Amino acid sequence: MNRVPESELVLVPGGTLITPTPEEGRALSITMARHSIHNIQPDLDVLKGGRPNYSTTPDSLIAVSQVIAIEFQTVAAANNYWRN
Amino acid sequence: MNRVPESELVLVPGGTLITPTPEEGRALSITMARHSIHNIQPDLDVLKGGRPNYSTTPDSLIAVSQVIAIEFQTVAAANNYWRN
Amino acid sequence: MNRVPESELVLVPGGTLITPTPEEGRALSITMARHSIHNIQPDLDVLKGGRPNYSTTPDSLIAVSQVIAIEFQTVAAANNYWRN
Amino acid sequence: MNRVPESELVLVPGGTLITPTPEEGRALSITMARHSIHNIQPDLDVLKGGRPNYSTTPDSLIAVSQVIAIEFQTVAAANNYWRN
Amino acid sequence: MNRVPESELVLVPGGTLITPTPEEGRALSITMARHSIHNIQPDLDVLKGGRPNYSTTPDSLIAVSQVIAIEFQTVAAANNYWRN
Amino acid sequence: MNRVPESELVLVPGGTLITPTPEEGRALSITMARHSIHNIQPDLDVLKGGRPNYSTTPDSLIAVSQVIAIEFQTVAAANNYWRN
Repeated sequence: MNRVPESELVLVPGGTLITPTPEEGRALSITMARHSIHNIQPDLDVLKGGRPNYSTTPDSLIAVSQVIAIEFQTVAAANNYWRN
Repeated sequence: MNRVPESELVLVPGGTLITPTPEEGRALSITMARHSIHNIQPDLDVLKGGRPNYSTTPDSLIAVSQVIAIEFQTVAAANNYWRN
Repeated sequence: MNRVPESELVLVPGGTLITPTPEEGRALSITMARHSIHNIQPDLDVLKGGRPNYSTTPDSLIAVSQVIAIEFQTVAAANNYWRN
Repeated sequence: MNRVPESELVLVPGGTLITPTPEEGRALSITMARHSIHNIQPDLDVLKGGRPNYSTTPDSLIAVSQVIAIEFQTVAAANNYWRN
Repeated sequence: MNRVPESELVLVPGGTLITPTPEEGRALSITMARHSIHNIQPDLDVLKGGRPNYSTTPDSLIAVSQVIAIEFQTVAAANNYWRN
Repeated sequence: MNRVPESELVLVPGGTLITPTPEEGRALSITMARHSIHNIQPDLDVLKGGRPNYSTTPDSLIAVSQVIAIEFQTVAAANNYWRN
């Protein structure tokens, strides 16, 4: 098996939910969602094989955007919504 | 690849979740959801190719409206629901 | 294109999440969900063409009811659940 | 059209999210979800026609149970989880 | 109709969301989700007939696990996450 | 039936939602989601039989990542987002 590199399996990259800006918090949300998937399916070839499929299917893209939105609820709350 | 312009890839346009009004908060929610998708699929031709599909399919439209509702939960909380 | 009237595109009708009663909060949730969809697909003919489809499909009706439930979480929180 | 009776269209029956017990809060959650659907599709014959379909399809039942769970999050929070 | 026994229709078994431990809170979440379904479809034969179907379909199992996760959010919040 | 071992059926492994780090909180979220599924379907052969299916289907992987995101909302809140 052509395994995803170790760094792509870290569940919370950076080890914290706290980020300086909303932009970085949003990026973290995307990364966490991606790394969830890497942990369930760590075979890089399978992952790459699926990409042409989901990334061109509107319903799959919508589903991914929903996961990001849910992750971001957590990250944003952790950062008190970067209010100050 | 005909790439989505840089401005369409910003994850939190404006760099803040705080908006003066609920209307603008809702608009930000829509934009954030759209920009999530741009980041996963930055090929403009693929995005445009998918639009006739999802935008005329009721179930896809419902799915998009759900993502917006989830994003808005975050934005509304960030703004203390614009209570004052 | 036979465009949805401007009033149907307002994202937060009334400009506030605060409502006098739960009933009105719930009605606002439904309206916000509907107006999300109008903003993604503002062609009235496409919208009307899809209605016989989703409104007679149980799974679509369930999906719509879920979006309403999510919107209502936000509206109810904004109103402190109309506790007093 | 054989229209759903008026009482089945009330969005928040009883006009409040506050209930004496969790059991009644849960029942309210189910009713609110059902009445959402009545408001989108008020034709009793269509509703009854769909019932044999969704009520015998596991995935539809799971989807309904998810909507109830989401509604209940709101009702339970409104009641401070009936902690006392 | 071979009706589900009365005890399987109680929406919040035990009449409270408060549990001594996370383990019991999680078990309550599963039971509440199951009893939702019993209330929508109280015919034991239909329920049993569907089981071989959903319980061997990965996507259905994932959907069930999502409902449990949502119910648990409520139960965990009710118990202040069993922090002490 | 080739039953899942007892340890794989514990709903909240460790008996607490509190974890020292976000990484461990995330791992707990994944485990709780998996153990939900074990409780609904404790037949190891059925579980293993389904794995090649869902783990190579992008939409299923996205669905799993959503469940993890929802579980993590609970675990992160329980830990006050590991803010200190």
